[in-house]
Amino acid sequence: MTDEATVFVPGHVTGFFTSDPDEDPTKAGSRGGGIALADGVTVTVTASEERSVTLNGVDIEVGAVDRVVDALRATVAVNAETPLPLGSGFGVSGAMALGAALGTNAVCDRGLSENELVTIAHGAEVQAGTGLGDVVAQARGGVPLRLEPGGPQDNYIDAIPERGRIEYHVIGELSTEAVLGGDTDALTRAGEQALSRVVKEPTVDTFMRASRQFAREAELLTADVQAVVEDVAEAGGDASMAMLGETVFALGTGLTDAGYDATATEIYPGGATLDDA
Amino acid sequence: MTDEATVFVPGHVTGFFTSDPDEDPTKAGSRGGGIALADGVTVTVTASEERSVTLNGVDIEVGAVDRVVDALRATVAVNAETPLPLGSGFGVSGAMALGAALGTNAVCDRGLSENELVTIAHGAEVQAGTGLGDVVAQARGGVPLRLEPGGPQDNYIDAIPERGRIEYHVIGELSTEAVLGGDTDALTRAGEQALSRVVKEPTVDTFMRASRQFAREAELLTADVQAVVEDVAEAGGDASMAMLGETVFALGTGLTDAGYDATATEIYPGGATLDDA
Repeated sequence: MTDEATVFVPGHVTGFFTSDPDEDPTKAGSRGGGIALADGVTVTVTASEERSVTLNGVDIEVGAVDRVVDALRATVAVNAETPLPLGSGFGVSGAMALGAALGTNAVCDRGLSENELVTIAHGAEVQAGTGLGDVVAQARGGVPLRLEPGGPQDNYIDAIPERGRIEYHVIGELSTEAVLGGDTDALTRAGEQALSRVVKEPTVDTFMRASRQFAREAELLTADVQAVVEDVAEAGGDASMAMLGETVFALGTGLTDAGYDATATEIYPGGATLDDA
Repeated sequence: MTDEATVFVPGHVTGFFTSDPDEDPTKAGSRGGGIALADGVTVTVTASEERSVTLNGVDIEVGAVDRVVDALRATVAVNAETPLPLGSGFGVSGAMALGAALGTNAVCDRGLSENELVTIAHGAEVQAGTGLGDVVAQARGGVPLRLEPGGPQDNYIDAIPERGRIEYHVIGELSTEAVLGGDTDALTRAGEQALSRVVKEPTVDTFMRASRQFAREAELLTADVQAVVEDVAEAGGDASMAMLGETVFALGTGLTDAGYDATATEIYPGGATLDDA
């Protein structure tokens, strides 16, 4: 037993997705595609006399993290550090849930497998209503294509075998709960079409085109996001909207070429992992 | 289209395994457990007028690589560099096949998905008779538990969520083809028992105990390997035999503590990946 464990979880922007509800939260979730980012969340779990959760040094309540710690029957301090904003489509809550699961298992010697821990974090995120597919994507890394919903026991994930620089520009927040709480039939149809397009041609270029088409058809594109995506296209670049946040992500130097003060990161090839002790 | 692509594939020592033949090489393979190593194989694939394959600068024929390049209908030069010896249980041939698949896809714009490329490399390795489970384990990384045989379309892989230092000591070579060509019923029964033990308690400690029991029960332990494993145990460490090579691997500083001039590496958490271009 160690007193402390640190886990790195990549960020994750979703390009397109479906909503696939199920009474069992470990089978519920979404299909879709996204990009794991080297800008991620570093989660440190420490044995503690009372539970606490912080993000960048500030106390915070994250429903998915509470559910993970409850499921593992642990009392721990969960401290997350990230350059990514919360609520802007980078999967920060999913990363905190997954980091809490892997870290608590190590600190409290719970003896669970990787897939069991991913399942707990995925189910917690679904029940908290803050995400449907980030956790399983962040466990895989790269450019994951979630071909079936649910945790690792139920889903099937493939990936686009590419690397490269990614830029992002955050305009504001969107509430995942509000979008997912509404009628998601049209969104799911658009997500299925995007996924089938990318499965036929699993390249990042096709992924970006399918993501833009999804954002339009699912009517999630805000006017501000649309303006930025068009600016990038005019500058010869390739951008789309991070689901669900008022955030634009682009390949290569797409956003800076269009004159935006964007943040640069890259595709992160691996999944969430404990730091080497 | 790029002219050259470089892929890093972790090494992989197998602790225990089953042999699960099938007429379809993408469904055939093995169940079992192993450890992905930071000491791996760097495979560079270059567009070329004629096919060539080298390992550490020397021309070599690797059946699995030839089958991969044939399957992708490509003419490329495949150059592999590794500190790991061939034929000693580190999955070097599997790594070369997987690196050739990912690299050729990138260089020749074949537009295949990660799982499709892993399937091609796995099937090539099975058909060449040089390995049953290294490729899918090297695509996952970490401490993979292969719960079903076959490529990613058919198998189910979990993992032990641990990191740490690994040492290894190479005594000599063993022929995978010779062992797998014989009667494998007893080996498969021992492999199933080891796997079920580790699934119940997915920790690296249990993995090492199950690996030693497998090596004894499958009657694969050579006298030289057994002597080293016993020396490590007497020094308070934890070692077993890499399947299939005359190689001992140990946790932490187990081999050096026992006085051996061992090589140190660590558990590599990620799977095979293209280098960032």
